Amino acid sequence: MKTYKELYTIIEQEISKLKYDKKPDELYQPITYMLSLGGKRLRPVLVVMAADMFGVDIRKAIPAALAVEVFHNFTLVHDDIMDHADIRRGQLTVHKKWDEPVAILSGDLMMIKAIDLLCETDIDPIRPLISLFNKTAAEVCEGQQLDMNFEKYAVVTESEYIEMITLKTAVLLGCSLQIGAMVSGASTDDQFHLYEFGKNMGIAFQIQDDILDSFGEGEKVGKKIGGDITSNKKTLLLIEALNAAKGEDLIALKHWLSVNDNDEAKINGVLGIYNKYDVRGKAENLKENHLQIAFEHLNKLSVAEENTIILKQTAVDLMERMS
Amino acid sequence: MKTYKELYTIIEQEISKLKYDKKPDELYQPITYMLSLGGKRLRPVLVVMAADMFGVDIRKAIPAALAVEVFHNFTLVHDDIMDHADIRRGQLTVHKKWDEPVAILSGDLMMIKAIDLLCETDIDPIRPLISLFNKTAAEVCEGQQLDMNFEKYAVVTESEYIEMITLKTAVLLGCSLQIGAMVSGASTDDQFHLYEFGKNMGIAFQIQDDILDSFGEGEKVGKKIGGDITSNKKTLLLIEALNAAKGEDLIALKHWLSVNDNDEAKINGVLGIYNKYDVRGKAENLKENHLQIAFEHLNKLSVAEENTIILKQTAVDLMERMS
Repeated sequence: MKTYKELYTIIEQEISKLKYDKKPDELYQPITYMLSLGGKRLRPVLVVMAADMFGVDIRKAIPAALAVEVFHNFTLVHDDIMDHADIRRGQLTVHKKWDEPVAILSGDLMMIKAIDLLCETDIDPIRPLISLFNKTAAEVCEGQQLDMNFEKYAVVTESEYIEMITLKTAVLLGCSLQIGAMVSGASTDDQFHLYEFGKNMGIAFQIQDDILDSFGEGEKVGKKIGGDITSNKKTLLLIEALNAAKGEDLIALKHWLSVNDNDEAKINGVLGIYNKYDVRGKAENLKENHLQIAFEHLNKLSVAEENTIILKQTAVDLMERMS
Repeated sequence: MKTYKELYTIIEQEISKLKYDKKPDELYQPITYMLSLGGKRLRPVLVVMAADMFGVDIRKAIPAALAVEVFHNFTLVHDDIMDHADIRRGQLTVHKKWDEPVAILSGDLMMIKAIDLLCETDIDPIRPLISLFNKTAAEVCEGQQLDMNFEKYAVVTESEYIEMITLKTAVLLGCSLQIGAMVSGASTDDQFHLYEFGKNMGIAFQIQDDILDSFGEGEKVGKKIGGDITSNKKTLLLIEALNAAKGEDLIALKHWLSVNDNDEAKINGVLGIYNKYDVRGKAENLKENHLQIAFEHLNKLSVAEENTIILKQTAVDLMERMS
């Protein structure tokens, strides 16, 4: 079994071999640009990790792994337009470096190229692979739309929030693992358990992200603490607080959501309410529940337990990466 | 052989059966909305027309025909954002009726759903079909990018213009016919000739569109004459005029491009230069050349000549539709 780092290195090499150098430049250069911004390459690594786990030559899973990474980057390009984000991984987003039409169109092209890469997979029939990929792609769109809708809603329930992050983030992790399993000829049972492992790990990971933005240690997290609070982002913590806070606390919380003049006071004010209602504890519980479900699915896989260690380790590393 | 009208009616029925009614509404309703705006349904009709020509049950070609139509509508949704278009077929464009994020995201979903429909085609192997579709989809993106680039260029050559309209419009017509042929199990020769017929017909059709906007009779064309002139659109006519006009005429033409205060004077001024350099004649010649190439490819098909009549008639009707 190859380590995450070994698989990551292979994926990086394969990404660097992708040639999107056709004309017009404005259309193709953003693809190379986005793919060069780096990152953990979690999704393509999960694809090849699953294949490796089933003892299949990971080269068989490379095109599908690249398809997932190109698709993921396509969603980032379009999400950045919708979210008015100027910076991604320390660099200008595509619509800022070029312009919005370029970002829309080169994003579209990335989606098309993702399908092309997927179709390069040496598997027959290929329809189930495309079907899984497309089902997930549609769900990711649904998740992004829900996320945008939630920003306008006064009340969002915990289960609505979980549904949103499941669609927006978690299903693509599950899909990546299932694709790796599918390419390896794994049973539908194993495919299912890997999908559920990835999905539930993704949910836990997203909750952890919410927790760290408000309760992490700035240096380790690598970004300013409290950014979600100052931007009124509908995180799980805010949702739990809005649902739990009573009387004057609720009035105070809504007050903080309405002001933007003093970041420090706002962060401290909101954190005070978070602490009073222990929303962190609630979020930690929810995170642990999903991690547990993830590991239960891992244990149901038909492969030797030692082969599942790397997936367990990946989940643990991801959770501890910043905490 | 079924008539265009009969095929159109079948396509309309099949489109009305498509159910995009999942949640969230903002994501799915624009798909139904766009597909309900009508139009000639030229592309899906060409798909089933080709199948009918090869004597294949057109039901076999329906999913691919719908895929092409959904893809075409996806490009319209995104193009309308890029072109700041408020109205499409007399109705609000998606980004105007909803907003830009909804238009970006529901457009993305339409692209995904187009691939889903394509994969419903009962053909094995399916990869060549997806490959053709994706190649064309990428070219349509390239054409749109070139079109946007040309608006910023001082000089565009005739051949650059032909390349742009080929990619933006014509290849999808060729692709539609080839898909119909492919689904019918036609030979690669027949597929090639149908593709070239459709592509060259598309180029001629686009040139005709340019001509009619400046020289058509308002009532027949169904839109205000001279719109391309007042908006400085880089049509074939303007490109030919910019390349042909000399001395004071070129200065005058550039003057008209720089003013926007009197539409009637601008239209008459530009038309005067168009007439002096006979740019209409040049455009008509180019159109006729492409129509001739199209018909030559039609004559090389291995099917009985009587089966090609409907395609010839469709081309003639399209050209005469508004002239």
